[in-house]
Amino acid sequence: MAEEKKEDNVIYIGKKPAMGYVLAALTQFNNNGAKEVIIKARGKLTAKAITVAEVLRNRYLPEAVVKDVKIGTEELTGEDGKVSRVSAIEITILKKEA
Amino acid sequence: MAEEKKEDNVIYIGKKPAMGYVLAALTQFNNNGAKEVIIKARGKLTAKAITVAEVLRNRYLPEAVVKDVKIGTEELTGEDGKVSRVSAIEITILKKEA
Repeated sequence: MAEEKKEDNVIYIGKKPAMGYVLAALTQFNNNGAKEVIIKARGKLTAKAITVAEVLRNRYLPEAVVKDVKIGTEELTGEDGKVSRVSAIEITILKKEA
Repeated sequence: MAEEKKEDNVIYIGKKPAMGYVLAALTQFNNNGAKEVIIKARGKLTAKAITVAEVLRNRYLPEAVVKDVKIGTEELTGEDGKVSRVSAIEITILKKEA
């Protein structure tokens, strides 16, 4: 991606429980000084991305707002060379100044 | 909801295969003259809502754009009176004039 931007503030949603990603995002905001965190997920994990964003905002970071939600389609190439298309989501969370 | 607005253009995602909802949305646009269709889903079905929007745009309605994506949390009261919170999504698809 763009070289001028560090990618530390991107949280990729995987198979772990949602709370692990909530805490990862919270760490970016509170310990690493991030102003924005981008939560990314593909396929069925897109549902978990929404939960992570909502739990973060509602329980841990009331001063955070959803700045942007993008949806899209990504192509994945499997080990057999077969290309499959999956839905994707990118949720940008902005921490407002207190 | 608001009385002045018909709710026909809202597609609620349920347990059926995604293609059924894609066709329902397509019918709203092509047969019922809708300018906008809103795709709504809760919980794990939010992932399917994204797929429905993407398949609609990519395969059937290239002149459609994602106008807005909202995420939120809704409270559900179960039969036992217990309140649980689920993530929700609302995707607004706009058909641009040709």
